[in-house]
Amino acid sequence: MRDHLSRYKLRKSTFESDRSINQVGSAKTDNILEKTLSKQGLTTVLRTHTCGELRLDHVGQSVTLAGWVIRGRDHGGLAFIDLRDRYGITQIVFNPDRDAAMHELARSLRAEDVIQVTGEVVLRDDRENPKLATGKIEVRGHELKVLNKSKTPPFEPGTTELPNEELRLTYRFLDLRSDRLQEALQLRHRLTKLTRDYFDEHQFLEIETPILGRSTPEGARDYLVPSRVHEGSFYALPQSPQIYKQILMISGYDRYFQIARCFRDEDLRADRQPEFTQIDLEMAFVDQEDILSLIDGLISKLVKDLRNEETERPLPRYDYQDVMEKYGSDKPDLRFGMELVDVAEIAQTCDFAVFKKTMEAGGRVRGLNAKGAADRYSRKDIDCLTEFAGEYGAKGLAFFKVTDEGLHSPIAKFFSETDKQKIMETMQAEVGDLLFFVADQCAVTSAALAALRNRLGKELELYDPNDIKCCWVTNFPLFSYNEDEKRWEAEHHPFCQPVEADLEYLKSDPAKVRAQSYDLVMNGYELASGSVRVHDQSVQQVIFDLLDISAEEAEERFGFLLQALRYGAPPHAGAALGLDRLVMILCGNDNIRDVVAFPKTQKAADLLSGAPSEVDPHQLRDLRIKVDIPQ
Amino acid sequence: MRDHLSRYKLRKSTFESDRSINQVGSAKTDNILEKTLSKQGLTTVLRTHTCGELRLDHVGQSVTLAGWVIRGRDHGGLAFIDLRDRYGITQIVFNPDRDAAMHELARSLRAEDVIQVTGEVVLRDDRENPKLATGKIEVRGHELKVLNKSKTPPFEPGTTELPNEELRLTYRFLDLRSDRLQEALQLRHRLTKLTRDYFDEHQFLEIETPILGRSTPEGARDYLVPSRVHEGSFYALPQSPQIYKQILMISGYDRYFQIARCFRDEDLRADRQPEFTQIDLEMAFVDQEDILSLIDGLISKLVKDLRNEETERPLPRYDYQDVMEKYGSDKPDLRFGMELVDVAEIAQTCDFAVFKKTMEAGGRVRGLNAKGAADRYSRKDIDCLTEFAGEYGAKGLAFFKVTDEGLHSPIAKFFSETDKQKIMETMQAEVGDLLFFVADQCAVTSAALAALRNRLGKELELYDPNDIKCCWVTNFPLFSYNEDEKRWEAEHHPFCQPVEADLEYLKSDPAKVRAQSYDLVMNGYELASGSVRVHDQSVQQVIFDLLDISAEEAEERFGFLLQALRYGAPPHAGAALGLDRLVMILCGNDNIRDVVAFPKTQKAADLLSGAPSEVDPHQLRDLRIKVDIPQ
Repeated sequence: MRDHLSRYKLRKSTFESDRSINQVGSAKTDNILEKTLSKQGLTTVLRTHTCGELRLDHVGQSVTLAGWVIRGRDHGGLAFIDLRDRYGITQIVFNPDRDAAMHELARSLRAEDVIQVTGEVVLRDDRENPKLATGKIEVRGHELKVLNKSKTPPFEPGTTELPNEELRLTYRFLDLRSDRLQEALQLRHRLTKLTRDYFDEHQFLEIETPILGRSTPEGARDYLVPSRVHEGSFYALPQSPQIYKQILMISGYDRYFQIARCFRDEDLRADRQPEFTQIDLEMAFVDQEDILSLIDGLISKLVKDLRNEETERPLPRYDYQDVMEKYGSDKPDLRFGMELVDVAEIAQTCDFAVFKKTMEAGGRVRGLNAKGAADRYSRKDIDCLTEFAGEYGAKGLAFFKVTDEGLHSPIAKFFSETDKQKIMETMQAEVGDLLFFVADQCAVTSAALAALRNRLGKELELYDPNDIKCCWVTNFPLFSYNEDEKRWEAEHHPFCQPVEADLEYLKSDPAKVRAQSYDLVMNGYELASGSVRVHDQSVQQVIFDLLDISAEEAEERFGFLLQALRYGAPPHAGAALGLDRLVMILCGNDNIRDVVAFPKTQKAADLLSGAPSEVDPHQLRDLRIKVDIPQ
Repeated sequence: MRDHLSRYKLRKSTFESDRSINQVGSAKTDNILEKTLSKQGLTTVLRTHTCGELRLDHVGQSVTLAGWVIRGRDHGGLAFIDLRDRYGITQIVFNPDRDAAMHELARSLRAEDVIQVTGEVVLRDDRENPKLATGKIEVRGHELKVLNKSKTPPFEPGTTELPNEELRLTYRFLDLRSDRLQEALQLRHRLTKLTRDYFDEHQFLEIETPILGRSTPEGARDYLVPSRVHEGSFYALPQSPQIYKQILMISGYDRYFQIARCFRDEDLRADRQPEFTQIDLEMAFVDQEDILSLIDGLISKLVKDLRNEETERPLPRYDYQDVMEKYGSDKPDLRFGMELVDVAEIAQTCDFAVFKKTMEAGGRVRGLNAKGAADRYSRKDIDCLTEFAGEYGAKGLAFFKVTDEGLHSPIAKFFSETDKQKIMETMQAEVGDLLFFVADQCAVTSAALAALRNRLGKELELYDPNDIKCCWVTNFPLFSYNEDEKRWEAEHHPFCQPVEADLEYLKSDPAKVRAQSYDLVMNGYELASGSVRVHDQSVQQVIFDLLDISAEEAEERFGFLLQALRYGAPPHAGAALGLDRLVMILCGNDNIRDVVAFPKTQKAADLLSGAPSEVDPHQLRDLRIKVDIPQ
């Protein structure tokens, strides 16, 4: 049997539907493929059945299968072949007494050869294989045709020990044969299909927007495409269909969605790709609540159909300020608690200079309680955590271990018994707990403690990694102040509608203005983001003024949207969900490259095709451009 | 009422489902929107109903509508407003006796203002409007809120007399409000949804392939994208996912499809866009027949669901040689007959030197019979047709009018009575017919007569323009000889599998080798194209040799596919259908820009966004490129 079966077992709990490939047709398997298999036959000119569908019912029938040889073995003078296709694995057996030449040919087969076999379905002579959906039968080969030979592959597709990713990306066509990737792409197909069904049921129209668009220097760096017809001009690949979808609302389309490819020429992180896919939507004549409940329904449907689990409806909604206070992050992982706690009062009164001075300087002291973790972290482990917190800006990490004899810490001496008592109370501490504190500017305490919380949650296994927990975070600030450039910036984009009650602060106190914007957070990932858009030109003008965008600049950057807004723009709102990330989370995976058929490396290269590559000089001449690399 | 209603009437016969926008909910209308409207409510925070759904049943209810003002009018002291949204039009009436200020506000409204109205549904005071699905009722306005004012639009969306296309493309957001475009985009959504449902039912997985790919200088010109990370290197936007989908077959995905964006940097024709969408598919372990019958099923489903018409199953299949002989074209319009006829025998014996010499030079003389057209074309008209045929290479156009007194023609004197008798018989001519002949090399007779046939078919109204007629054309030649460059070229692409019986001619007589390739032709358009692919490396090598592609060049151009073919490639085949064109035909439209939300002009410019545009110099510096326009 293929090694992947053991891996499959490991991952089974992650995602029940993973069983699809191996257990097609097994009566007790309620999985994705099962649902589709019944729909339409898969018979073609080259096969009567797939390698996943033969059962006891088929015994006695003559069948033709086609697929890939996993491996062969000799046993009792017979030649056995495990034959694989997308739907499963079937054992074929060749008897030299029936046809010596065919038996010999079967023995000569090697892994990944492609064959076609005609034979009779029989009960297994040897023991049943309960791991295989087809494990009760085998096929006695009467005809064997080698459709194509394979060179010896550099690694076995679906092997448990994954070879290094570079090799797998170079030979992507082999890695794509693994259950790991076949299951992910199958889930991805299912998820996009369900999503489209959902929006269609809700009367959304899927409308394609251009890939060859206009560069609008907002947000990330654009990918550019030189125009041949318009010399010296460039198209830009869209970072999102934002402006187009707003225009569709102005054009009266009312409910738009698109599963849209987007592009960002950024330095890549592990969960980013230069091109990615988003579920993009926009509605007219709605407010924030309409959007949130629509997406609640989508998430509920996806989780139900793909994992057979229920989600809360409505999904919990939290205020930005509240989650920043409780979790230090606007994308909290809610699969566990461990909330941040403010200890300002103690910090002000204790004798620990770091705490006191931080408070005097207008900073904050906040902590968290790693319940029962006192024994799990040695002094050396805590040094590691201190270094880790440092990566998020914390200049130090104070800690207390709660023992039978009270609070233990190198800094314990700076705290009176009353202080310690207050710490115990404020932190809801019990014997065995480990308390951490960061003293710094508010933003640093948030960043460091949020990262620490995520790390501790994982290390202490405070949650089931297969759990899915979502929430909405709303009321983001509309603006943030860029200290370096001494100017206000749009937190999201300059088309977010302010919260009505905050309109009065637009000019007087921009920091106070909240946006009608919302993020959907899933397991600590930002999964979706959206806002109510400005449809009133006077509000838009105030925002541009504040962002120091001149009329000329606004016209240059967003001209066609601004123009459209003048001709009867309805109130509208929308959102975009990261499809790759959603598939990744629902697969229980943490590598975005495992849910994309042909991904790029962190250096934005496709190792399979060799893209990007040098091109023929005449191509550049046609485009009126020249490569210009400074020495 | 909006002028478009009259246009709508004109187009009704073109496409029954066009009625959707105006006749939502009318009991006798079996249209697309009707089907969706019942699915889910469209109530949002800003409206209780849409402008398309109120009926007699709603009389007495208080409702809130939101939409665009079409126009207002005063009548009997009341103010009437026609309010429009995506779903229809509702008449609102404001009574000054109820609220003088509101009545005044209503009178001040102008076309394309966006308003929200709350009021009571009542029976119409004035006459019913049978053209409107909501024509039996009106809404008495009790509350009126202006959500947004509109500047005076440069043209009225949906006006019968379309303003020039440049203006409409610049103000695309207004033109998109027209029924013409709303109906087209709605049909497009429906068609893609039905297509995805169909492939999903047949167990296809939709798999996204990269947009940032590798330049493979095959076929048309690539759009290039400079890489910032890999200085001096470029991505290319895909002309089709051809290589990726073959790799998916090699990876065992078995049944792949994708509604895929493709790009070609070509000089544009009327029915082309620089970016276009294709329904792309590939299957493993199949032969040509599997693909053809799959697509037959798709076309049948689409035509049935979108037009409530039946198509033949299987669709008729013609040999390339046969259609070239009968229609002079590999994309014949089968909505009418008027087949080409060979008159070699007569040409050889007659005294008309042009005919005789052509035959002696190895050319052909072919003709067609425009039945009953003798009186429709004056001598001057025929001169026009001669000029037209000249555009396709014909040096002349001989003609005969069939009268009571025999064949009339300036060249009649060169033909004996026996010749004339033979012409009558061969051409199946009757009194009143008009016969045309072209004498030239075979290819010229084909091109000129095919074009003439299409023109005559249209001018003589030989078919119902709303008819849909499809056929398959198969057995294309695998190679064509490029006389200029003195070398063989692949007719389709170099991965087409030759017809088995022709394998023996691969080296000895390439012109004789037919490909296992097929085109789907609809109403004279090439709608789909595909082939069985080469999966055998030795056949591939012979083809490369013939095309004079060296091992090195093959590796450079197709390396990653060739590599993959060595590791167990199954027999596979596929096709791609032009989605934009399909929507265009099913809409009864002949402008591809009317079925794309944000199209580009023939100069590949987006007049709405202003793409392509100049970009900031620092963007080019980041990409290590320079604009280089020769003086």
